[in-house]
Amino acid sequence: MSEIAPVADATARARLLDAVRFDARGLVPVVAQQHDTGEVLMLAWMNRAALAETLATGRVTYYSRSRDALWRKGETSGQVQRLVDLRLDCDGDALLALVDQQGVACHTGRRSCFSWALREGAVRSVAEPLVDPKTLYDR
Amino acid sequence: MSEIAPVADATARARLLDAVRFDARGLVPVVAQQHDTGEVLMLAWMNRAALAETLATGRVTYYSRSRDALWRKGETSGQVQRLVDLRLDCDGDALLALVDQQGVACHTGRRSCFSWALREGAVRSVAEPLVDPKTLYDR
Repeated sequence: MSEIAPVADATARARLLDAVRFDARGLVPVVAQQHDTGEVLMLAWMNRAALAETLATGRVTYYSRSRDALWRKGETSGQVQRLVDLRLDCDGDALLALVDQQGVACHTGRRSCFSWALREGAVRSVAEPLVDPKTLYDR
Repeated sequence: MSEIAPVADATARARLLDAVRFDARGLVPVVAQQHDTGEVLMLAWMNRAALAETLATGRVTYYSRSRDALWRKGETSGQVQRLVDLRLDCDGDALLALVDQQGVACHTGRRSCFSWALREGAVRSVAEPLVDPKTLYDR
């Protein structure tokens, strides 16, 4: 796996941006996967500005639908995602970000946001928090 | 990892369905990951009916936005996904399906749909087709 980020070449960044098919809201879903372990950490959204910033800085920036603003992952919590590589799918309407996740990805203190599943007939947490979420945001 | 699927208990299926936050269109994004290798295969969508069928049958069924119909993965191509486990994320608005992918996931004949990336300044395929896509659909 080659480390592409940050992408210094503005022309290359523009080519990638133009290959993405953003939806009617101007968004594209992004799957974040830890580049070496393969763990799927989270699914979030980017608009064109978030993707452009991610490519230019090598730090993953999403678009927060609830806050209607760029969301620089880890800006508040310190749980930064460094971009290692970025994959487009076959029709360009979904992205896979291979990242190096600092600490935990989930606001609950769990490593991955995908930590709930059906167990013994009920939806239960299948991974314990690694850190107290209060320590992520009370800084 | 426990094999949960198919889920025989209708009450358990209903609990899982009720824990999912479908969007305004009634859809939820689903990341499909090969359960043993960790490879991210594709991102697609489910509505409530697709998820209910997936849980009841143990074979992954998506919702095709272009065809506005249930999409039983592999029905045409034979490239079936058997459900091994299903994870919900922390706010219930994204799913991670751990699957056993028969053959390739991508309609281009590639193992994963996420097979394009920036290389030498251009968006290029980073994985070759394992099968001729014609053989997937000319059956």
